[in-house]
Amino acid sequence: MTEPAEQPRTPDHLETITQALNSGMFVHVRRMLQQMRPGDVAWLLESSPSPSRKVLWQLIDPDDYGEILEELSEEVRDGIIRLMDPEKLAIALEDMESDDLAYVLRDLPEQLFTQVLDQMDEQDRQRAEQALSYPEDTAGSLMNTEFISLRPDVTIDVVLRYLRRHSELPEGTDTLYVVDQHNRLLGDMPLASLVVQAPTATVAEVMDTSVEAIPLTMTDTEVANLFERHDWLSAPVVDDNNQLLGRITIDDVVDIIREEGEHSMMGMAKMDDDEDTFAPVLTSARRRSIWLTVNLGTALVAASVSNMFEATLSQLATLAILMTIVPSMGGIAGNQTLALVIRGMAVGHIGDSNARWLLTKEALVGLINGMVWALAIAVVVSLWKGSWEIGLVIAAAMFINLSVAGIAGATIPLVMKRLNIDPALAGSMALTTITDTVGLLSFLGLATLILLH
Amino acid sequence: MTEPAEQPRTPDHLETITQALNSGMFVHVRRMLQQMRPGDVAWLLESSPSPSRKVLWQLIDPDDYGEILEELSEEVRDGIIRLMDPEKLAIALEDMESDDLAYVLRDLPEQLFTQVLDQMDEQDRQRAEQALSYPEDTAGSLMNTEFISLRPDVTIDVVLRYLRRHSELPEGTDTLYVVDQHNRLLGDMPLASLVVQAPTATVAEVMDTSVEAIPLTMTDTEVANLFERHDWLSAPVVDDNNQLLGRITIDDVVDIIREEGEHSMMGMAKMDDDEDTFAPVLTSARRRSIWLTVNLGTALVAASVSNMFEATLSQLATLAILMTIVPSMGGIAGNQTLALVIRGMAVGHIGDSNARWLLTKEALVGLINGMVWALAIAVVVSLWKGSWEIGLVIAAAMFINLSVAGIAGATIPLVMKRLNIDPALAGSMALTTITDTVGLLSFLGLATLILLH
Repeated sequence: MTEPAEQPRTPDHLETITQALNSGMFVHVRRMLQQMRPGDVAWLLESSPSPSRKVLWQLIDPDDYGEILEELSEEVRDGIIRLMDPEKLAIALEDMESDDLAYVLRDLPEQLFTQVLDQMDEQDRQRAEQALSYPEDTAGSLMNTEFISLRPDVTIDVVLRYLRRHSELPEGTDTLYVVDQHNRLLGDMPLASLVVQAPTATVAEVMDTSVEAIPLTMTDTEVANLFERHDWLSAPVVDDNNQLLGRITIDDVVDIIREEGEHSMMGMAKMDDDEDTFAPVLTSARRRSIWLTVNLGTALVAASVSNMFEATLSQLATLAILMTIVPSMGGIAGNQTLALVIRGMAVGHIGDSNARWLLTKEALVGLINGMVWALAIAVVVSLWKGSWEIGLVIAAAMFINLSVAGIAGATIPLVMKRLNIDPALAGSMALTTITDTVGLLSFLGLATLILLH
Repeated sequence: MTEPAEQPRTPDHLETITQALNSGMFVHVRRMLQQMRPGDVAWLLESSPSPSRKVLWQLIDPDDYGEILEELSEEVRDGIIRLMDPEKLAIALEDMESDDLAYVLRDLPEQLFTQVLDQMDEQDRQRAEQALSYPEDTAGSLMNTEFISLRPDVTIDVVLRYLRRHSELPEGTDTLYVVDQHNRLLGDMPLASLVVQAPTATVAEVMDTSVEAIPLTMTDTEVANLFERHDWLSAPVVDDNNQLLGRITIDDVVDIIREEGEHSMMGMAKMDDDEDTFAPVLTSARRRSIWLTVNLGTALVAASVSNMFEATLSQLATLAILMTIVPSMGGIAGNQTLALVIRGMAVGHIGDSNARWLLTKEALVGLINGMVWALAIAVVVSLWKGSWEIGLVIAAAMFINLSVAGIAGATIPLVMKRLNIDPALAGSMALTTITDTVGLLSFLGLATLILLH
């Protein structure tokens, strides 16, 4: 009996391989890569600066290409696919599950797409075309069509004998599905249940008929929320007639949850979530310029608001010194509400029935925040600048801006969702424009009215 | 043969129950709640405004309390636990898996904690104390100790007969573990493999000895990354002597991935990730005040920077109008880099071997951004204000600030991680303070030097 092999922890892998690569020990690297799992190789590629990636890819056994491509993030995969010729790519893709196949094909440039499809054998091409026929980001595009289905009238013993005719079950199989002669889903039979049943029982007697099937057209976000809420490992996908078409497995759902998390987080920071950490410098600089352009626009909007008060500012330089405080606080308070609402929408907590309650609540939080911070800033500024009038002006502006920030932070994502705009990316930019404008207008406006009349 | 029951989609549930609740149809609500799965009831509680939650909780069958508490998010659960007496809570907790039990107990106020532990029967108390003995956020605290282990010398037929003596397997069982007489892990046997093996084969012949076991002390982030990278459904947890102590299942890993995503996203927006969307107004306002206080501090730092240039500002009000542009662009560019690095660290892509490469790359992106946006702002401002000297000053400040932003955005999270500070929360505040200060100092400083002598 052998002890399980002592596996080096993967961060060590990264060190060792990077060193070997830098010393030109390519044969050694090739051997190490062969011993690694596809997921680890994918992780290594993602963790490597873009120049090392090309070298690594050439050292990988082409038989492993398919499994590794499946595991790579979109941006890194695209870079690597550009290094491959269509013929090799077609061979690599043939090993993939149908959902991953469609996922990769969908992203290919049109010319390469046609070339790759031409290189595939008939059966794989049909499988690919079938998978591509479902809209992206729906249950259809997430499902794979490799699964085992049973008829209800056979006994458990027969099922076990049938399974033993397979050398292995389709990847990620945890449940068998029970269908009638028209392939309509009747129930399911988790393996964990199968193995405790008496061999003489029939499938119909012991199957679980309460199985909840996923409609083809459900969005991937809803699918992920259902998996999470019910702790599923897999779920069957059916069409309108309850016919079983495929199954979705938890590994794909984990990817969705990870991507959604990254999308919202990177979105709050004005970044594409698929930006590759180790992309070349020029690619990175170019990708980030979109949001810097938008921000320059909003910064100029804010500047043109203060421009309206040039006369006031030239009379009282103290206002210039203080004028950034109110917009800054409004931006933070508004973004807090915005993030809360975006998260609530992502996990499906916010619907028509509670949106109004939430809006009222956030407006009240804004009012309370407004009162608290108006008082705080009034005290600080009155003491610092020795003028209770300036303290009063900044307090009033703070109250107005934080109240507006609460309402805007809750309203913007709800409205954007209705207009099918992604609030994670555009939301905080819109919000900041509002809080900057309202903050400057109210502070400089009130100052002009009260201090300079 | 019955068709699977037509299940109403859950968002409809929310509407229907909210209406029934508002109309006082409590008997009806109680019946609906009984028919729902624990995960759905938890979701309903999380989606309900705080006053409705209390009513809903009283309508739920106490037998279901345990399963529902397990599924609730921390913040919502804490609120509900405060409504329960210790005795009922102890009964509810007895049904939980050991990892969830520890998770709930850890959060209880000390007095309640002791009361609940006293109410538990001996066996559950021991189970709880064992689970609590592992540090939070490690593999030990994530694992549950209910699993099935086999000896290597028995045949598959014997295994199946042994399994049939169970009425059901422990929740989430997808793999059986093979151990020697000292309970040391020898290999594993996924159910999907078990069911295709010949009944006469021995476990030793067909088990998978390449199983990668998780050490007790591994952090939950590393555990989540391993699950994601290898598409695992569960993994065994061992101590230093390779003795099998428990297993971690994918449902807990999904929760970690979701929480990490929310944590970074909410962190970027200066929010606690466990803030309950439907918390009472005062609770929300209080929780958000911490970051508003910090932000007031940083805003006052920025104001005191411009305060140093009061003389300059009073001579040239145009500077006041333009002075917010450079800090704003620096904040966005720096936050882009910050988000990229935080994400890279979270998924384990960034280590000692590539941190320097990344820092260099982000510094170069900052330099390029700096040149591009310096040129852009120079043109805009020269045309707007009709002064190429002001254009030159703002261009130079922009170049300096964006270069600093790139370096700061990459350095801050790397340094904070080394100091064990969470960069998702504190990082962008530190960054903004730097980009505000450098932006104002360079713009107003250069303006004083170049425009006013």
